[in-house]
Amino acid sequence: MFPDTSVKELNEMMFDAWTAFHEYRKLPLKARAAFMRGIAIEIENCGDILIEAAMKETHLSEARLRSERARTILQLNQYADACEKGDWLEARIDTAVPSKNPPKPDIRKMMIPIGPVVVFGASNFPFAYSTAGGDTACAFAAGCPVIVKAHPAHAYTSHIVADAIYKAAAYHNMPKGIFNHAYGESFEVGKALVLHPYTKAVGFTGSYAGGKQLFDWANQRKEPIPVFAEMGSVNPVFLLPEKLKSSAQEIAAMYASSITVGSGQFCTNPGLMIGVDGDDLKTFVHDLGKAIQKVQPAPMLHAGIVKSYKEKKGNALLQDGVHLVAESEMEVKEGEGLPTVATVSGETFLKNPLLHQEVFGPYSLVIRCKDMNEMLTVARHLEGQLTSTIMATDNDVKQYEALIESIKNICGRFILNGVPTGVEVCLSIHHGGPFPATTDSRFTSVGADGIKRFARPICFQNWNNQLLPDELKNENPLGIWRTVNGELSKAKI
Amino acid sequence: MFPDTSVKELNEMMFDAWTAFHEYRKLPLKARAAFMRGIAIEIENCGDILIEAAMKETHLSEARLRSERARTILQLNQYADACEKGDWLEARIDTAVPSKNPPKPDIRKMMIPIGPVVVFGASNFPFAYSTAGGDTACAFAAGCPVIVKAHPAHAYTSHIVADAIYKAAAYHNMPKGIFNHAYGESFEVGKALVLHPYTKAVGFTGSYAGGKQLFDWANQRKEPIPVFAEMGSVNPVFLLPEKLKSSAQEIAAMYASSITVGSGQFCTNPGLMIGVDGDDLKTFVHDLGKAIQKVQPAPMLHAGIVKSYKEKKGNALLQDGVHLVAESEMEVKEGEGLPTVATVSGETFLKNPLLHQEVFGPYSLVIRCKDMNEMLTVARHLEGQLTSTIMATDNDVKQYEALIESIKNICGRFILNGVPTGVEVCLSIHHGGPFPATTDSRFTSVGADGIKRFARPICFQNWNNQLLPDELKNENPLGIWRTVNGELSKAKI
Repeated sequence: MFPDTSVKELNEMMFDAWTAFHEYRKLPLKARAAFMRGIAIEIENCGDILIEAAMKETHLSEARLRSERARTILQLNQYADACEKGDWLEARIDTAVPSKNPPKPDIRKMMIPIGPVVVFGASNFPFAYSTAGGDTACAFAAGCPVIVKAHPAHAYTSHIVADAIYKAAAYHNMPKGIFNHAYGESFEVGKALVLHPYTKAVGFTGSYAGGKQLFDWANQRKEPIPVFAEMGSVNPVFLLPEKLKSSAQEIAAMYASSITVGSGQFCTNPGLMIGVDGDDLKTFVHDLGKAIQKVQPAPMLHAGIVKSYKEKKGNALLQDGVHLVAESEMEVKEGEGLPTVATVSGETFLKNPLLHQEVFGPYSLVIRCKDMNEMLTVARHLEGQLTSTIMATDNDVKQYEALIESIKNICGRFILNGVPTGVEVCLSIHHGGPFPATTDSRFTSVGADGIKRFARPICFQNWNNQLLPDELKNENPLGIWRTVNGELSKAKI
Repeated sequence: MFPDTSVKELNEMMFDAWTAFHEYRKLPLKARAAFMRGIAIEIENCGDILIEAAMKETHLSEARLRSERARTILQLNQYADACEKGDWLEARIDTAVPSKNPPKPDIRKMMIPIGPVVVFGASNFPFAYSTAGGDTACAFAAGCPVIVKAHPAHAYTSHIVADAIYKAAAYHNMPKGIFNHAYGESFEVGKALVLHPYTKAVGFTGSYAGGKQLFDWANQRKEPIPVFAEMGSVNPVFLLPEKLKSSAQEIAAMYASSITVGSGQFCTNPGLMIGVDGDDLKTFVHDLGKAIQKVQPAPMLHAGIVKSYKEKKGNALLQDGVHLVAESEMEVKEGEGLPTVATVSGETFLKNPLLHQEVFGPYSLVIRCKDMNEMLTVARHLEGQLTSTIMATDNDVKQYEALIESIKNICGRFILNGVPTGVEVCLSIHHGGPFPATTDSRFTSVGADGIKRFARPICFQNWNNQLLPDELKNENPLGIWRTVNGELSKAKI
């Protein structure tokens, strides 16, 4: 429907973005925030046409898409508030000490934007992690122009959202080039954007293969640039003994739902469940299997994802020692993902790296460990994860401290007695994790701390007060929090 | 004197570091801080033996080395204070909202250490950027074990400092493997350390070639890791018209000193000075030349650096359009760097990329622009820098806003009417900058914010208060600043 953007057009977009960068970065925080809120309003104004386009392209349910659009609007408004509030600027002021030998100069530091950001939309979140999603909102808040490459699986939806951004940009008199929208079925479009010298950072949500490729291109540039790729994970769930004994049935019911919600198409989908073999685990597996049999299959995003799910799941089930526990027994249609649970021993799991890999879809593998030592070994051999979960009583947590510490070391979000699906949009969230969950474990892609991905510090030495940016002036005209001579304060100097 | 550490020994060090990591990361902040202060005491206790060893190995003056040792001790104590104070933990708490639909869980976030850190000592700072220097201090504060590869040019000095760290570790009952010291003339030792799977980050201060090689190795790993390489820069100084008119002579005197201090062996050495051609610039160049002629040459660090200085300077002076302004006319001995200033037109500078590169030593190039537009073009064509300086009146700053904005965009520290040499150790400092000044412009290698290089966030969802780390408990037992439901506070919840 949309032809690939030509190299000539990409170069024009990047040139315009670079030009816009020099204007946009000078705008006050409140102007950036107003623009972001304007985008939220324009997305709201798209009305049902947007929902209908997304339903058609992604096969996600209307309820899910309405809720995702609401979340996208929430993100834009929440990050706009954070942008204005200015905590992310990390303003630090150390005033001069002329009596020191040599005299200590006045030094003041704050974050400034890094430059044009290229954002790759995710197939599984057509709004919240796409065109006007978290990466775009964070980049605008930081002071960076954005170039979005639409995900080909929902290019029309992306087109509508892009129009909303263009409208908001015009209404708020943003510089030409503050935002541009590119199309590309071919990977060459993405490659050209990542390699362009004016590109200063990349945001991506998607597969390991895709994210790692962008990361490698970015690091092979003459001037390497940061890539924030969120590449999914298997999100292990550890079932601790006392909790499993008391609550096997409740956990099974809770997880039958978490494994299959949204046809399993979340990067936080629980793909591994780890317990110690015995009657309690048998009860859990039995109940989980029974519940999975009754889950109605739901459509997956597109034919490629259905195919990949079938292949990866099929391959996992063919591995030595892997046993099918249950599949959904409800009617399944073309394009739907069949909810499935399998099981394997801890020993076999440890020997087979293929079983550590994500199967994107409504699938989970239960690992039967022979004892808690083997569970610890499993935890120590897992790769980096977005989330890890323990189902545990207080006693369990206290008794298995080494396990808890090992789990901490591999994940970005650690859930106690809950499910990993569902990512709260708030300042305290960390949606990230050690490689290969992401390419940079130090940053989050959800929550206002994500703004910091697209900023870097600069310090001003020996500047006169009236020549400093407002953020660092003695009078603190923006009323932001600053660390002044070592102490956090909103006071004037 | 010290044989290269064998691969077997390196593997043992890394294994011990990994084991130590699991113990050290659990220690309270005050235990880490006490250990760091213990290292400062042990370095002090080394007494004159340490200064004498460094004088012999580096040829730096006694006064300089005493001051550098004092700075190293200051860093350890200052970062220990920051470690305990806990601002770097970026604690964020959003309490549960059970009435929301779906209910919002309690989520709390803080920084945790990333794992063993490999530090490469710098030849030009045998204390402050070496064995117990800023990288090591930051890693210990963050909760990470450290493996230092001694710089071969001051291996014995490094050995003495390493012993001080071992002593402090023993006194404070640190786990075995919290620190190890490796030797290597061969690059294979460094390569093995960077590629080791237990290494989780690298700190480096030195040449572009060295830093970029470590960066490439780190990114080619199965699990890429962050490299914080500070690779130097040319630190441009822009001479604005009104200021140059009023103060050409003072600036010349100030810079004759800054260019040649420490035989020019600072990463912040001013290697380019940019003005508009005319009488004022002629006065400046004349006076700078006169002053340089009278600067006494001083020894450089080692024969390799002398050779490289002669070659790079010689090559720069051979370029078309480059004219020698002056060399020191004082007696010069073997192993000393000859203070030198040259000049070139803006047009020629813009055409010749070789002239944009650092000449490590007491050398600076004055660029004569035909007008302020050409100065702006020069600013826009410079690579990333640790520092940039403008010599300017208030009027100059207001009149040449586009120039000021362009300079902001290329540097980490921006000095007004001062010299770039001399890096204050304080929270507001930023010692870093866009590539190729460093491999990661988002982090500083000086000041307590450098701790954040070796930490990453984790969030805890739905945890009971008593099971949370002290940093995140309702009672705030550590009394640290936390962002609670959006507001910074030290209060209990």
